[in-house]
Amino acid sequence: MSYQIAVLAGDGIGPEVMAEARKVLTAVEERFSLSIEYTDYDVGGAAIDSQGCPLPDATLKGCEAADAILFGSVGGPKWEHLAPNDQPERGALLPLRGHFELFCNMRPAKLHAGLEHMSPLRSDISSRGFDVLCVRELTSGIYFGKPKGRQGEGENEEAFDTMRYTRKEITRIAKIAFETAQGRRKKVTSVDKANVLACSVLWREVVETVAKDYPDVELEHIYIDNATMQLLRRPDEFDVMLCSNLFGDIISDEIAMLTGSMGLLSSISMNSSGFGLYEPAGGSAPDIAGQGIANPVAQILSAALLLRHSLKQEAAATAIETAVGKVLSDGYLTGELLSSEERHNAKSTSEMGDYIAQLV
Amino acid sequence: MSYQIAVLAGDGIGPEVMAEARKVLTAVEERFSLSIEYTDYDVGGAAIDSQGCPLPDATLKGCEAADAILFGSVGGPKWEHLAPNDQPERGALLPLRGHFELFCNMRPAKLHAGLEHMSPLRSDISSRGFDVLCVRELTSGIYFGKPKGRQGEGENEEAFDTMRYTRKEITRIAKIAFETAQGRRKKVTSVDKANVLACSVLWREVVETVAKDYPDVELEHIYIDNATMQLLRRPDEFDVMLCSNLFGDIISDEIAMLTGSMGLLSSISMNSSGFGLYEPAGGSAPDIAGQGIANPVAQILSAALLLRHSLKQEAAATAIETAVGKVLSDGYLTGELLSSEERHNAKSTSEMGDYIAQLV
Ligand SMILES: CC(C)[C@H](C(=O)O)[C@@H](O)C(=O)O
Ligand SMILES: CC(C)[C@H](C(=O)O)[C@@H](O)C(=O)O
Repeated sequence: MSYQIAVLAGDGIGPEVMAEARKVLTAVEERFSLSIEYTDYDVGGAAIDSQGCPLPDATLKGCEAADAILFGSVGGPKWEHLAPNDQPERGALLPLRGHFELFCNMRPAKLHAGLEHMSPLRSDISSRGFDVLCVRELTSGIYFGKPKGRQGEGENEEAFDTMRYTRKEITRIAKIAFETAQGRRKKVTSVDKANVLACSVLWREVVETVAKDYPDVELEHIYIDNATMQLLRRPDEFDVMLCSNLFGDIISDEIAMLTGSMGLLSSISMNSSGFGLYEPAGGSAPDIAGQGIANPVAQILSAALLLRHSLKQEAAATAIETAVGKVLSDGYLTGELLSSEERHNAKSTSEMGDYIAQLV
Repeated sequence: MSYQIAVLAGDGIGPEVMAEARKVLTAVEERFSLSIEYTDYDVGGAAIDSQGCPLPDATLKGCEAADAILFGSVGGPKWEHLAPNDQPERGALLPLRGHFELFCNMRPAKLHAGLEHMSPLRSDISSRGFDVLCVRELTSGIYFGKPKGRQGEGENEEAFDTMRYTRKEITRIAKIAFETAQGRRKKVTSVDKANVLACSVLWREVVETVAKDYPDVELEHIYIDNATMQLLRRPDEFDVMLCSNLFGDIISDEIAMLTGSMGLLSSISMNSSGFGLYEPAGGSAPDIAGQGIANPVAQILSAALLLRHSLKQEAAATAIETAVGKVLSDGYLTGELLSSEERHNAKSTSEMGDYIAQLV
């Protein structure tokens, strides 16, 4: 069995953390006798520089031919003057999500034992730990709804966006939230703004209907404004948070920041046939790019998720995750996870990769 | 000079904290020889029970005849089974905002000296303090945009909402943000999602234009997802946050929770002629209603804001704020602001009101 992975390293720290993910993948390939072929494609700012657009045709074709996409990160100050549509993030990520109908985005945020002090939360709150999974609808809602645009002139010129959801779209993402919750702490918190949005009223109705098929899973509804607040007071009481596209964008970033260690978080964007895009939660971090200090763990964990979800190589995925767990609990950490007194013990990007590759 | 205030106490703790605000208003009336006439009107769940709808005509007429509205809080479990449109919060607040075109909502969130431990943030972050003002557009955006509704059937049934902003609407709220920033730390952070929303692209353009008239104020733009994160790490670096209706709903609640003392926060909703609605940031707290333990400070500070902004009685407003400051720094606190060991020192709702009234 041979697999094809499209590797889109992108900008900033993307290429250097991707190199470590490749190192670890090569190690598990040997250990589990997998045969994976990797092809690199330009994306984001790198693609703008080399080919004039953030998602060149060759990249899209390469992804179509692959079993999965391993994505780094895109964007940086160099391309910020461009029009929104042409910028690396929007110009690469949104079309990829749309083209492959990657409707299901899963962003886990877990406070790692021993790293509680990284959380921006008060110690009595962070010491309780938390493990929240944001299940976000990714190809509909106000991101893709039509009409979207501008009309009129002078002070009456107006811009408009449309939030739109069908019963079918809500059903398929809700099912995934409930199924995933069954393998976790059996609680789904559906985030909406049903006191204002027609989309949220339908969302709530459909989620209630889907919930009937999962009687073992507890369901609660919460308004987005209140969710943002409650996560600060009692993050440990949430398990799976089911969100529309826009609300999931906000909630997933909030929970990521609550861990205080974004360099450890990865995410999945999947379609209904198991094809997916796997990427770290943090951005391209142009300020630290090229220094060999970026944390490669999120990129390495993205590779593990790719193995599990798109290639169905559970054992190889678990091997990577176990190795990462061991490395972190051994206190083998990059600088951003260490206090200033301990920072002289910081490991470099490639030392982290080497150590994890050795352990898989 | 005689003023008319429409008093809408509402549900839950609304009536009991309103009684304390009235006590304090009576005290400043005497001291500053003001003549204020108060008329009580039903609103929210109380109005549903007595008159069958959350915002009866008589209430709306009474508000029209007044110089300002002093609002308590609405909602509670008793009315949660109702359709969204008929519920107390949505059925009273949104029509009031729309009817009086209360486009400008200001929600300050300041960490009070001595109450840093209430913040859910890590002590090294909260000890730096913060003082953030959310300036939220309140009568447009996805709350009021048309079309909004449902169509189709079966699994293709869909719901839709429209986010809509005109240049004029953005200009008027942006001006207020910059003017307010001039009297504060001279920084405006405009929150948007310009990498996805057409409304945000226009928002950013207009804010840039308005900023030219305020060269002494620094302007920065931030995406809503990133704003949610940065507030957790460095709340002290924000001054005025300028937000559209939906994003302001989220940001204002997040910053309120970051103080950890919602019972101290009040807010203004104003139109262009200075007419306004003044209300506490916290909700109706039905769980503690009727026990005499609710914190009346937010309601009392709402009265101060009403005096300042709608009645132009700056001295009376400042007298109330100074009295509140003194009471808090004297450690005169309701139970939710005290640790369990100190809770036996908790003051009741009416003791707080008495003490503040005495001091104005
Ligand atoms: C870059 C942007 C369009 C994107 C989004 O809003 O979805 C990003 O914030 C994310 O969450 O992946
Ligand atoms: C009750 C609700 C409609 C309202 C809003 O979303 O504006 C509330 O959350 C608020 O912030 O005042």
